[in-house]
Amino acid sequence: MKAEKAVLLLSGGLDSTTALYHLRAIQTEVFPLLIHYGQRHSKELAAARRICTRLNLKPMLVDLRAIQPLISTSSQTNEAIEVPEGHYTEESMKLTVVPNRNMVMLSLAISWAVSLKADRVVYAAHAGDHTIYPDCRPEFIQTMNQAAQLCDWHSVELFSPFENWTKSDIVRRGLELRVPYEETWSCYKGLALHCGKCGTCVERKEAFALLNVVDPTVYADEIEEEGTANHHVMAT
Amino acid sequence: MKAEKAVLLLSGGLDSTTALYHLRAIQTEVFPLLIHYGQRHSKELAAARRICTRLNLKPMLVDLRAIQPLISTSSQTNEAIEVPEGHYTEESMKLTVVPNRNMVMLSLAISWAVSLKADRVVYAAHAGDHTIYPDCRPEFIQTMNQAAQLCDWHSVELFSPFENWTKSDIVRRGLELRVPYEETWSCYKGLALHCGKCGTCVERKEAFALLNVVDPTVYADEIEEEGTANHHVMAT
Repeated sequence: MKAEKAVLLLSGGLDSTTALYHLRAIQTEVFPLLIHYGQRHSKELAAARRICTRLNLKPMLVDLRAIQPLISTSSQTNEAIEVPEGHYTEESMKLTVVPNRNMVMLSLAISWAVSLKADRVVYAAHAGDHTIYPDCRPEFIQTMNQAAQLCDWHSVELFSPFENWTKSDIVRRGLELRVPYEETWSCYKGLALHCGKCGTCVERKEAFALLNVVDPTVYADEIEEEGTANHHVMAT
Repeated sequence: MKAEKAVLLLSGGLDSTTALYHLRAIQTEVFPLLIHYGQRHSKELAAARRICTRLNLKPMLVDLRAIQPLISTSSQTNEAIEVPEGHYTEESMKLTVVPNRNMVMLSLAISWAVSLKADRVVYAAHAGDHTIYPDCRPEFIQTMNQAAQLCDWHSVELFSPFENWTKSDIVRRGLELRVPYEETWSCYKGLALHCGKCGTCVERKEAFALLNVVDPTVYADEIEEEGTANHHVMAT
């Protein structure tokens, strides 16, 4: 049987990295697509590259920073807007929505899939995203799947294996597949360490905590707390 | 009444230029979006700019040439593939299809529309395109319209006023609106003059001929024929 070919939108985060390992486990030939759209947390792309190197895959990196003037209403694409902190389902997190980001990325992935005569485009949206990100909702994904099948004489299927999974479900599957989560990057702030306070850090922590497994991520806020705790100990 | 705001995908060709004049005639505030995707006939963008200048509009030009590796299977994005000549509905014209081009351009137009809180994205696909270009078919446009309404909390409508018009219908409307067709650019070859032989030149000629009106375009093949004819006259 010929292996399926799939273009994967790989951000370097926890979800799409798990999707990469998941696809390889089901014998799919993966073409990872990395997109630099001027995201504040472009550190994630370095993570994506490291993961590709580890798996001996050559990713396609597209520099899309020229579209910045079209999408500058988000904290992720505009330095002047502060990244909100708190639980990732809070209303304030809508500031992190990049206008129509997923359609832009999917459309490029579909272009490449058509060029490669690939079978699928894979996209790692999950159930936890639905509250805040309109372009992660099942109805959006279904519509884009229809569009993917109409946009060219070669039809491409859009596959989102985690559409109804929680982040914990993803981590559970990833641990089975030995995904090196310490190599992945989630934090929206894109500083030296994961901040531990932004929506995506809170969600990441929660995913490991709910499974009662060790989270290999080093969070800046936990180091500070430990630092403070030690200081208290020493002072007494 | 507040004027509608619309982002228009403006190529500098006959169809989208007519759409621009049409939108202004119906009191729409237009935000023209010009995209350089590495097209062989990037001359069209200079035409688009001239038309914007004439109307005192400031277009947004996005340099998307970085996506070239994803879309290099077309004669329009790959210098090594020759532009086919003949009638624009012939099978050979499928070589000119740029993989998923319209979804990419629409997605960027929708991003900008969301950022601007605009009402619509306008796209000048017409009935003559359906045979060759899958991403001009009504079913594709309808699906993208649904996606445009789901992709963000601010809903955008996709409007394609010429979806069921022939190219002659467009020119008829354009002549009423005094569209300066001599300023527009269609030819896929992108040389000094319109070649007169590629699919889009053939279609352009036909649109004026069917209306029995003067086509202001200077076509290279007609100059050559006139040259030959004159030569014959002189030789006798």
